[in-house]
Amino acid sequence: MYKVLMIGFGSVGKNLAVMMNEYSGRLAGMGLEFGVVGVFTRSRGNAADPGGLDTRKLIDDISSHGRFTGPLVSVSPLEACRDLDYDIMAELSPLSIANRGEPAASHIAAALRRGKHAVTANKGPVAFAYPELSRLAHDNGCRFLFESTVMDGAPIFNLADRCMKGNAITGFSGILNSTTNYVLTRMESGASMDEAVREAIEAGTAEADPSDDIDGWDAAAKASVLSRVLLGADVTPLDVRRSGIRDVTPEMISKAASRGRRLKLICRGRRTETGIDASVGVEEVASGDVLACLSSHDSGISVESDLMAPIMIIQKNPTPRDTAFGVLEDMISVIQGSQPGGRSGEAFLALSRHNNAIRCRHP
Amino acid sequence: MYKVLMIGFGSVGKNLAVMMNEYSGRLAGMGLEFGVVGVFTRSRGNAADPGGLDTRKLIDDISSHGRFTGPLVSVSPLEACRDLDYDIMAELSPLSIANRGEPAASHIAAALRRGKHAVTANKGPVAFAYPELSRLAHDNGCRFLFESTVMDGAPIFNLADRCMKGNAITGFSGILNSTTNYVLTRMESGASMDEAVREAIEAGTAEADPSDDIDGWDAAAKASVLSRVLLGADVTPLDVRRSGIRDVTPEMISKAASRGRRLKLICRGRRTETGIDASVGVEEVASGDVLACLSSHDSGISVESDLMAPIMIIQKNPTPRDTAFGVLEDMISVIQGSQPGGRSGEAFLALSRHNNAIRCRHP
Repeated sequence: MYKVLMIGFGSVGKNLAVMMNEYSGRLAGMGLEFGVVGVFTRSRGNAADPGGLDTRKLIDDISSHGRFTGPLVSVSPLEACRDLDYDIMAELSPLSIANRGEPAASHIAAALRRGKHAVTANKGPVAFAYPELSRLAHDNGCRFLFESTVMDGAPIFNLADRCMKGNAITGFSGILNSTTNYVLTRMESGASMDEAVREAIEAGTAEADPSDDIDGWDAAAKASVLSRVLLGADVTPLDVRRSGIRDVTPEMISKAASRGRRLKLICRGRRTETGIDASVGVEEVASGDVLACLSSHDSGISVESDLMAPIMIIQKNPTPRDTAFGVLEDMISVIQGSQPGGRSGEAFLALSRHNNAIRCRHP
Repeated sequence: MYKVLMIGFGSVGKNLAVMMNEYSGRLAGMGLEFGVVGVFTRSRGNAADPGGLDTRKLIDDISSHGRFTGPLVSVSPLEACRDLDYDIMAELSPLSIANRGEPAASHIAAALRRGKHAVTANKGPVAFAYPELSRLAHDNGCRFLFESTVMDGAPIFNLADRCMKGNAITGFSGILNSTTNYVLTRMESGASMDEAVREAIEAGTAEADPSDDIDGWDAAAKASVLSRVLLGADVTPLDVRRSGIRDVTPEMISKAASRGRRLKLICRGRRTETGIDASVGVEEVASGDVLACLSSHDSGISVESDLMAPIMIIQKNPTPRDTAFGVLEDMISVIQGSQPGGRSGEAFLALSRHNNAIRCRHP
């Protein structure tokens, strides 16, 4: 059993726990048995069991009691990362710009220093501490993956790393914040910004304080992560030229519509002669542009490189389940990539072949 | 030096040769030195040199003399696959539906039987012989990759294999034939089908006999390859429900346009209760649909799976260079995946990290 330590148990954490249970048979067929040995939260309590927690009970506990009822432990998340016995740490706490990715970055660093793999859906640690964290992973022979930080589980970083070998990425652009795209779409149908934001909060897709979305901080964090990982730039969210959607008026929306155009919050990053230019801002998109077809919670990114025409990855209406899958894929990858039986990368390849068979056999 | 045997030296083959020369420094930085030891063609002659051919000279030969002038050899492509000393065979000959993927499938089988890696941009061998060829690769400890068979170098198969581990693909749909998409786009601007086809032939993007495109055979071969590899189905191009664009009239185009819609040749494949349903046919696409934004040579595929919302990969205006990159990526992957120094998959990962650095250093 691969022991998983979870920090954070919001919608992504719960979906990940459900997915690991629901698909345990498929995972076992791939030689992967995951057990959750600790779940640490900000406000639901901390539960741990070296033999494996019953995550169904933890979810029931939250529904019934608002918090875990046991088996409780009194260590902090950071102490858990430092001291508990686990194989993979999944950091699923929310983004904090104000705290520059902390405490998540410290949790991940603590895991990596012990040679434990870390996976995260939290943009903060990558946006603020990618060089240090990737160096720690390298030096300690473990891996740090973060596919779900941008566009939920849709492959972006793993695609660039695993499927574009030899290619040099030169830039990216896309719609990467779901809440603002939803708000802009609803404003096109006549809703006010306040109404649209309230709907997003009620649907659980926006935070109770949606200012990180509205003011472009979430998008800036994504532009930072993409600039760091794809373009090798040292860019924090604070370094991204940023404007959000707060100043968008119904008049601007309808004026664009009258020209067959749509307003979209676009993230961009590209190499220039002097370095990296990363930005977030509202742009008018022409109706024939693929980005104009992305409504509500859809997102999409175009990746430019020197050996290929631009390719674009689009994700239609993702849910927290997509984010959870991205984390699970990272968990599978870190285990397969470091399996002791492997020689000449063959374990990796054999398992990858096996996966393929598994994929086909379990429709 | 990794010795490459090339079968076929049309636009993809020439672009691949140019790319290997042009980026030899980058490849060397990744520990990869490729040398072309043989180039076998249908009508340009056959050249081979165990020490490595000068592919620039071969390209000049074709420009100046219409064929290779040396160092010539008198063995057949199949004999070359069986007898020459090489590490990777790149099958870059054109699709043949009438010959059920032959002779390309036999070339690939001959390489794999000797434990030599094979990569191909030719759909035929995968569409007609995937089970046998993948079994041969497995049994002989080598690899068979074919990213460029669908959507040129855009990652589809490698993405599903390397970035969607644990996920079960349930279906796909998309625009995958460039010539018909170009013809339909030109007809929207008032060109007749004959004019548009002639333009595509003159531009070198359609074959002199474009009937494989127009009648949907190329698209059916792609639907077959996708159904086999992503859905595990035993589907040849002959098993795909198929209609091309031959019967599309200017009236149909303008009638669709009057409703804000576009006609597109759509490939589909999905699991049903009784098996796999794979099809190619003209459909009306609504203006808000991403597929409606794909004009001329653009292509795009939506991949459905059970753990993620549909994701879509779009390629804008690819060229033979994109196809060549897909083949090069496969060549890099087969070498990295079987490097003898690798322990625990770490060679793979280390190289992948190294790639990333290379990517960033060579904008």
